[in-house]
Amino acid sequence: MASKNGVEWSIRVDDGSSVVLEPEHKYRMMRIWDGLKGLVVRFFTRVWMFFKKAWDLGVDDPRKFFHCLKVGVALMVVSLFYYMRPLYDGVGGSAIWAVMTVVVVFEYTVGGTLYKCLNRICATFLAGFLALGVHWIASHSGHRFEPYIMGLSLFILASATTFSRFIPVVKARYDYGCTIFILTYSLVSVSGYRVDDLLHVAHERLSTIIIGTCLCIITSMVVFPVWAGLELHLLIPRNMDKLAKSLDCCVADYFGHIDEESKKKLQGYKCVLNAKASEESMANVARWEPAHGRFNFRHPWKNYLKVGASSRSCAYCIETLTSCLDSKDKVPEAIKNHLGSACMNLSSSSSNVMGELANTVNTMTRSAKIDMAVEDMKNAVKELQNDLKTLPDLMIQPHDKEKDELVPSELTVVPLMDVIPVVSFASLLIETASRIEENLVKAVEELAESAQFKQPEDEKKPKQNSNTAKIVSDEGNATALERV
Amino acid sequence: MASKNGVEWSIRVDDGSSVVLEPEHKYRMMRIWDGLKGLVVRFFTRVWMFFKKAWDLGVDDPRKFFHCLKVGVALMVVSLFYYMRPLYDGVGGSAIWAVMTVVVVFEYTVGGTLYKCLNRICATFLAGFLALGVHWIASHSGHRFEPYIMGLSLFILASATTFSRFIPVVKARYDYGCTIFILTYSLVSVSGYRVDDLLHVAHERLSTIIIGTCLCIITSMVVFPVWAGLELHLLIPRNMDKLAKSLDCCVADYFGHIDEESKKKLQGYKCVLNAKASEESMANVARWEPAHGRFNFRHPWKNYLKVGASSRSCAYCIETLTSCLDSKDKVPEAIKNHLGSACMNLSSSSSNVMGELANTVNTMTRSAKIDMAVEDMKNAVKELQNDLKTLPDLMIQPHDKEKDELVPSELTVVPLMDVIPVVSFASLLIETASRIEENLVKAVEELAESAQFKQPEDEKKPKQNSNTAKIVSDEGNATALERV
Repeated sequence: MASKNGVEWSIRVDDGSSVVLEPEHKYRMMRIWDGLKGLVVRFFTRVWMFFKKAWDLGVDDPRKFFHCLKVGVALMVVSLFYYMRPLYDGVGGSAIWAVMTVVVVFEYTVGGTLYKCLNRICATFLAGFLALGVHWIASHSGHRFEPYIMGLSLFILASATTFSRFIPVVKARYDYGCTIFILTYSLVSVSGYRVDDLLHVAHERLSTIIIGTCLCIITSMVVFPVWAGLELHLLIPRNMDKLAKSLDCCVADYFGHIDEESKKKLQGYKCVLNAKASEESMANVARWEPAHGRFNFRHPWKNYLKVGASSRSCAYCIETLTSCLDSKDKVPEAIKNHLGSACMNLSSSSSNVMGELANTVNTMTRSAKIDMAVEDMKNAVKELQNDLKTLPDLMIQPHDKEKDELVPSELTVVPLMDVIPVVSFASLLIETASRIEENLVKAVEELAESAQFKQPEDEKKPKQNSNTAKIVSDEGNATALERV
Repeated sequence: MASKNGVEWSIRVDDGSSVVLEPEHKYRMMRIWDGLKGLVVRFFTRVWMFFKKAWDLGVDDPRKFFHCLKVGVALMVVSLFYYMRPLYDGVGGSAIWAVMTVVVVFEYTVGGTLYKCLNRICATFLAGFLALGVHWIASHSGHRFEPYIMGLSLFILASATTFSRFIPVVKARYDYGCTIFILTYSLVSVSGYRVDDLLHVAHERLSTIIIGTCLCIITSMVVFPVWAGLELHLLIPRNMDKLAKSLDCCVADYFGHIDEESKKKLQGYKCVLNAKASEESMANVARWEPAHGRFNFRHPWKNYLKVGASSRSCAYCIETLTSCLDSKDKVPEAIKNHLGSACMNLSSSSSNVMGELANTVNTMTRSAKIDMAVEDMKNAVKELQNDLKTLPDLMIQPHDKEKDELVPSELTVVPLMDVIPVVSFASLLIETASRIEENLVKAVEELAESAQFKQPEDEKKPKQNSNTAKIVSDEGNATALERV
């Protein structure tokens, strides 16, 4: 209170003078000092954490580091055009456009870079051509009308192009091109009013942009390329594997106990729920990529999106399934034991199917075992349904058997309410299985059809010696083990 | 076969010469002509459909048209700087940068425009300042080292900035700034090697960019502004309403029949499932917007995202619920009748809660009725649970009662398997209700807390005359009716 009201505490000393006590003041200073120190420490901790996170990000995927180095190198190379006089004189003052192109166009994936490069070149060419044409018309219609014609054409073209960006297809494929189109048109038409040798300007701009884009395309395709198509191709089966693990862990958690690590894996389905945007952007840029690795130019990337959507529909089910875990303790042990094995069986056969599908996509080879795996899953569904059918017998169950085995056992009725959670868990599990069968299997089948996946080894060479067949089946086991 | 092998059919005429028959050829020509006609018609139909779709897009939301006109106007105005000699001489040759800024920076929403403008200005300023500093150091360390120092600094800064774009926070808030930073740094440092009056260049560039950005900001904020924050604020309750309708229609469909229009509404939850990306991008740009309408500068947009995520978690449940519709015909009528009213009751009280929450967000006024609505929902859950408890009595039900009422009725046991679908439907419904209560209500409560929503009318003025109170309750009824 003293410090707040500005009251001073003093002691009257023997000689009559008073000594002012300043502990408050000192404390305040110290408190401010502590506060400052805390602030500084907190600031540096935050900065440190930020850098640590960034570093982890790079260590997690070193290609991100490489990408940064690539951008640096490309920029260095292109600025050479400016430093070296002979090149500079050749290309002229607009060498700056080459630098700009590199900065703006260089993306993480090859597809992204190609998308921007091609959009930039085409849009620049088209807009330059149009601007020259309109400029020619304008200059032939008299000096008075020239600015009006140029201004009006600029207004109309800019508005129309801006509107076209709202159309989903244009947005996905030519968004960048639209920006560049307006940009180039306005630059050429505006400077056309001043600069006389317009053709020269247009030619210069186009050639510098081509230098920049070529450099970008070469760097991104040759030095540690990151193909968007390949990324998408790897993401889809990885997500399916995550779903399979989630399902397994969820059922294992319901009918028993799982360790901490499995609890983490249980959350895997969340990645699938949130993957839509990244899948779509990858597919959008993958279409621009040339043939690479095992993929042709017109690889059916759209089908990957369908597989992704089907995975997501399974993920919705699994998400609902996990919320059943809250009520697992209320279910009587007897009922759990009765349904447990069938549920575990269904989950493992479902995740087996998902793993097989993931493997199919991954290796781009049709699976010889997928039909059997689906059949297994169907049988597991039937088994679980049978177990559900015999549930009423169990609901009227012997009571206190251990206490007195000779006395005829009393019968207790397990109320339906206690059974409902596990019954709905089981029917959600069946629903998941049916979604896998109806959506996922079909989507992968469609993908295999349109991407012309290879036939499985043992179908192509049915009369092989048993030795090779053994190796194949061993491999199958290995992946199955990895999945478990 | 004839045309394929190139064989000619001819008739020997009386005078010995032969006349070649050309019906194949004629037919082929006609077929080609038909094919071409078909192609052209199809092409124009596609073009026509494309334009029709585009037009519908604009009619659907006329603000998109306005946006295009705004861009056109802004570009026209900025190109005036170039056409008018006095202004041109004032700003100099780099007036072109103002044009460029307008093209690149103008976005659909005010937030998007501000985000780009502020990023552009700050990044340009920072990079220009840095480039000047490095240039000064380089020029003082001798002519020989100058290009090396400049090149190396360019390499390091470009790589580091590119890397920082991988960090999610930087990506969300400063992505555009990073691009502009690299761009400006490389432009200034590269041209610094040639142009002597660097300061002049930097100053010119900055001033033109400021002209461009100011024009953009003013145009986007004054002429028919589209606020990202407002869009987000309207989207969230709209999605909740869609969810409520979906839930109602789904339950109504299960226990009865619905018309075509309701079937469309049943699909509403899909919008919610796919809304994540757009919600996030809106919240990202909304943070840049100044106070507008009922929103302050630091309006808690993040809380809207939480409400959105909670809506989505309900949507997952409803998605699973809709897949139960396939099995609705297998459930015995008696069981349906038994549970129907409780389920309908629960769905209508759940959708009532969602509607109340949507209304709360929409009007930014805490609802006086929300507690009662939640209580209603809880009671409906209890009612449904009670009905589920009495289900076993029904499962052993009188058979063929109508045929002979005097004879003691035979008893039939409805097998548990027939009941399972409806039981799991009911428990999914209960799960949906619990998600609404635990996630959605809490998220909206949190939002109301942090955004300081108004207190409800009847709490603020408890001693009003009954007349006003009646109007308030009438309004409540009206919105409830609209929801239904």
